[in-house]
Amino acid sequence: MSDIVDAAKRLLVGRPVRSDNLGHTLLPKRIALPVFASDALSSVAYAPDEILLTLTIAGLGAAIISPWVGLAVVVVLVVVVTSYRQNVHAYPSGGGDYEVATTNLGPRAGVAVASALLVDYVLTVAVSISSGAQYAATALPALRGHEVSFAIGLVVLLTLLNLRGVKESGTLFAIPTYLFMLGVGSMAVVGFVRFATGSLPMAESAVLDVLPEDGFEQGLMGLAGAFLVLRAFASGCAALTGVEAISNGVPAFRKPKSKNAATTLALLGGLSVTFMMSILLLAKVTNVHFAEIPAEQLTLDGVPVGEDYVQNPVLGQLAAAVFQGFPPAFYLLSAVTGLILVLAANTAFNGFPVLGSILARDGYLPRQLHTRGDRLAFSNGIVALAGGAIVLIWAFDAQVTRLIQLYIVGVFVSFTLSQLGMVKHWNRHLRTEPDPAARSRMVRSRTINGIGLGLTGTVLVVVLITKFSRGAWIAILAMAVIFAVMQAVRRHYDSVRDELALGPDISAARSLPSRVHAIVLFSRLHKPTMRALAYARASRPSVLEAVTVAVDPEDIPRMRADWDALELPVPLKILDSPYREITRPIVDYVRSIRRESPRDLVVVYIPEYVVGHWWEHVLHNQSALRLKSRLLYTRGVVVASVPWQLESSVEVAHRQGDDA
Amino acid sequence: MSDIVDAAKRLLVGRPVRSDNLGHTLLPKRIALPVFASDALSSVAYAPDEILLTLTIAGLGAAIISPWVGLAVVVVLVVVVTSYRQNVHAYPSGGGDYEVATTNLGPRAGVAVASALLVDYVLTVAVSISSGAQYAATALPALRGHEVSFAIGLVVLLTLLNLRGVKESGTLFAIPTYLFMLGVGSMAVVGFVRFATGSLPMAESAVLDVLPEDGFEQGLMGLAGAFLVLRAFASGCAALTGVEAISNGVPAFRKPKSKNAATTLALLGGLSVTFMMSILLLAKVTNVHFAEIPAEQLTLDGVPVGEDYVQNPVLGQLAAAVFQGFPPAFYLLSAVTGLILVLAANTAFNGFPVLGSILARDGYLPRQLHTRGDRLAFSNGIVALAGGAIVLIWAFDAQVTRLIQLYIVGVFVSFTLSQLGMVKHWNRHLRTEPDPAARSRMVRSRTINGIGLGLTGTVLVVVLITKFSRGAWIAILAMAVIFAVMQAVRRHYDSVRDELALGPDISAARSLPSRVHAIVLFSRLHKPTMRALAYARASRPSVLEAVTVAVDPEDIPRMRADWDALELPVPLKILDSPYREITRPIVDYVRSIRRESPRDLVVVYIPEYVVGHWWEHVLHNQSALRLKSRLLYTRGVVVASVPWQLESSVEVAHRQGDDA
Repeated sequence: MSDIVDAAKRLLVGRPVRSDNLGHTLLPKRIALPVFASDALSSVAYAPDEILLTLTIAGLGAAIISPWVGLAVVVVLVVVVTSYRQNVHAYPSGGGDYEVATTNLGPRAGVAVASALLVDYVLTVAVSISSGAQYAATALPALRGHEVSFAIGLVVLLTLLNLRGVKESGTLFAIPTYLFMLGVGSMAVVGFVRFATGSLPMAESAVLDVLPEDGFEQGLMGLAGAFLVLRAFASGCAALTGVEAISNGVPAFRKPKSKNAATTLALLGGLSVTFMMSILLLAKVTNVHFAEIPAEQLTLDGVPVGEDYVQNPVLGQLAAAVFQGFPPAFYLLSAVTGLILVLAANTAFNGFPVLGSILARDGYLPRQLHTRGDRLAFSNGIVALAGGAIVLIWAFDAQVTRLIQLYIVGVFVSFTLSQLGMVKHWNRHLRTEPDPAARSRMVRSRTINGIGLGLTGTVLVVVLITKFSRGAWIAILAMAVIFAVMQAVRRHYDSVRDELALGPDISAARSLPSRVHAIVLFSRLHKPTMRALAYARASRPSVLEAVTVAVDPEDIPRMRADWDALELPVPLKILDSPYREITRPIVDYVRSIRRESPRDLVVVYIPEYVVGHWWEHVLHNQSALRLKSRLLYTRGVVVASVPWQLESSVEVAHRQGDDA
Repeated sequence: MSDIVDAAKRLLVGRPVRSDNLGHTLLPKRIALPVFASDALSSVAYAPDEILLTLTIAGLGAAIISPWVGLAVVVVLVVVVTSYRQNVHAYPSGGGDYEVATTNLGPRAGVAVASALLVDYVLTVAVSISSGAQYAATALPALRGHEVSFAIGLVVLLTLLNLRGVKESGTLFAIPTYLFMLGVGSMAVVGFVRFATGSLPMAESAVLDVLPEDGFEQGLMGLAGAFLVLRAFASGCAALTGVEAISNGVPAFRKPKSKNAATTLALLGGLSVTFMMSILLLAKVTNVHFAEIPAEQLTLDGVPVGEDYVQNPVLGQLAAAVFQGFPPAFYLLSAVTGLILVLAANTAFNGFPVLGSILARDGYLPRQLHTRGDRLAFSNGIVALAGGAIVLIWAFDAQVTRLIQLYIVGVFVSFTLSQLGMVKHWNRHLRTEPDPAARSRMVRSRTINGIGLGLTGTVLVVVLITKFSRGAWIAILAMAVIFAVMQAVRRHYDSVRDELALGPDISAARSLPSRVHAIVLFSRLHKPTMRALAYARASRPSVLEAVTVAVDPEDIPRMRADWDALELPVPLKILDSPYREITRPIVDYVRSIRRESPRDLVVVYIPEYVVGHWWEHVLHNQSALRLKSRLLYTRGVVVASVPWQLESSVEVAHRQGDDA
């Protein structure tokens, strides 16, 4: 199989990159901004929609307060960005929240943060790609009804791009991100100018009326109304994901890493705030009416619009209104928005494998995740991320409104623990710092992180209360499972390390077995057996025997005669097999040697076929494999595989560029 | 995983059996009859139904000729049984039709017969179990609608029983088979006595009328009518399967094997004929009306009976009529019939693995199928058979009428080729046999087999014509695929054997490598590494090096210092890894040694963890495995696995009853 896989890998992900080239894949700010910012920026494609449709549950009167909900989100965003600029400077190594929590709150908090972030990375991909698929369906109506398969196809495509490495994805993603900024920015400018001049048309949905849901006929009244506002706010907080991605990605920035990362973070915050508020305000002045279940809730002249009504995303409706009379602008903005959503998922493709690799390094995940793939990207993590996202997209039918209920719990767990860690960090440093100037900087930073802690903690509680039963429990359950698995993996590695560690007295480890008793196992007398015998003899053991198993006692005389005809200076031992088994008599024989001479080393030579095709494995080596795995349970035994390269394997070796 | 699997296996299939005990699992006639005859006998549970429902397509007038169709089946059955008594005497080794065809018609004919039989064994299980599930639903109406899952459950149960071995299944199966014989026999006797005395009631379906299908309003007229009669006959021939099972199972009989097998065959034929004709005649005199689509075809006072009507099997309807006034007899017979159908499937569980093992011995199937399992039953074949049957039951919804269209093609391919082979067999022996008495016996046998050939060939043509488009093509396709795969496997083994065979000059094979260059690979300095070093030193190679890979060049000084601290008389070689890979630098280094000294043997010692739990494999040894599989592609390299038994593995070894 490996030949096909290798060829496909080479074709799809390109040639390997040398370690020396690693510096070249570092990102300048103009590339880092689109790579890391696409996540936070792209959320304006769905966060305003979620705010509006949640408020609209209580009717049009409720939707009017949407800019105030947006403002609350903006406040949180500004505070979080300011707080994280402290993190980026204090912990520039890319461990991000995981490192902050581990260092200041202990390893359990670190693993908790890591579990939360891993889950949220997967959700970032699922939400962004699902939303992207919806925008694509806006521009290409032929895609309607195929959003799930389209979204899964996009994830697969992103996976392949990322297996090629960071640099190329960066360049590839810069152009559409800048186009998106340009598009939304000019829409906002043109929109407000037309509004100021009184020439801004109404949105397409302005003519529709809205039926509030049961219990909200009076609008936002009482506890239920307050709860609804909180839910809208919690959904809007999706705009905050992506902030932590930068703090995890500091090492990917060019030097000075921390400064560049902090600047990028500030830029990102400013753009996010501007876009979010612009969209909510324009939506208000153009009377965008946006509902969770448009077919039932939206009415025209008192009659529900029905299943045929296509509710375009808020951004699309705004573009249509603002650029009325110039349709290409609408299509262009839809296309670029769909594209940037796909690219937003890429943020997770940058962050997830880095975090996974750090966790593997620390022994919380299987060690092979720490090894870099051919292409300097952490292939295993990329594949795991893509798999998780595909499952979510498939399970939730690529519906953003359902997926968003699972989202951002993880990010706010991480925000809160990280800010708590930062407060402890400054406390610790303040205990030892004598310089008053440095102390006052630290106190200022601590104040910022303290405010961040208070605010993110509050938002976390709001998110948990408003979303738990609507899906957030799934995310929390996933975090708990990942947390438990990572703790178990770490405990296992720790106990193995203790078991294997060299004690203070290594003389025992240095003592050698007294003699070597070599056994060549064979089933037939053919070239591989001859090679195994030759190799065994070349290593000049103290004792050398050829051993075979007689399943049928009637075969013994012929076997002995064939052996004698070869005239080899090696005695033949034929083992009885009353149960017509191969493995057990050999294992028993090896153990009997060990019992008789416990200080001897037994080396068992097994001729093994090296095959070129996966199906040949089915036809060969089955007993050798079984035998080997059983023999290894016995102490003092070494199993030496003597390969015989079948002709088919030589081809494979050549194709792999090896000169066998 | 192996610990769980082993424990479950021990629990479900019992302890292993010694070869010496093999004689004890041989079957006396009184056990052999039920074991092998259940297949042929049980077909009276569905073959008469299929004859009736096929004829009923042309209306009730057509169904009247059912005993004549039954008589035609009986004629074929008598001829085939008589023919096979010759086979059993001439070929007592259990190769059955496969051996007869291979010996007399060549290996391709043998493989063709084997493919046909393998497919038909699977169908025997599928048809019998599906019919059994229908009888079970007759007795337990709660099962209705769950026939598929019930049938699959039965297959799984049978699989487990058969993994326990032949003997126990035999005893287990004898009682119900004898009960079935008693039940059907007494039903026939009571029925005919009541008919003679005029006290036999009508069947429950006698009051119903039947609508013929389109085109058959005139009854059995013209070509279509003749075709329908042939189709009914072809379905009735299902009664013949099971005959060849005895000829494949001769070695399982007690001595004198051939005589006992032939006697069992004659008994089976007699019982089959009697039961079949009794049921068809009783069905005629009690006016059983039986249709393919009862809801539409059966009418009461001109109105179709609809989906609510439950059409009981013919045997059930007869039992209800014959034992009217004594309901327990009806339930008992239904239960026993359901049971014997399940047991009929067991015939295939006896025959299929034996045939598979013979084919594996001859190189047509992967060699591991030839190895007996722990329990003297051929576990691999049993599992393969069960898998195939489950797929069929699931795909055809456990409907006998649909499955029967695929059935018996294989058996008649096998019958025909086998009889042709027997004719050739006698011709060959007649050429050399001088004794007139023996010659006349041979001529007589040849005549019998010749008649068998003519008749089975005709039936094969009839079956193909009437059933091809209704499903037989699936069976034929499966046979063709199996045939092709088996030929390919054999070709592969042949070419490997030629590639590996020792030539006339074996001096080259006897020449030894000049020196041994040993390499101990390690990633960390812990006990497993120390053990690998000790073992490598104990084998006193010409050159010995410890080799490790430096993924990060900054680690090199520390690695060297750690090594020096151990004060081992072994030089350390640290390999550079510009691509941060482990495998490639090592493979390249080993090849460079081979290039410099092509006559040296390179022995690579790899410390390997022996783990006790399947999940530990995910956490350990991944790089060792990858490395090993790559190193084996290089000539002149031996890979020696030095096991380190982790504590968890020691437990496993103990549980397996091994004293490690």
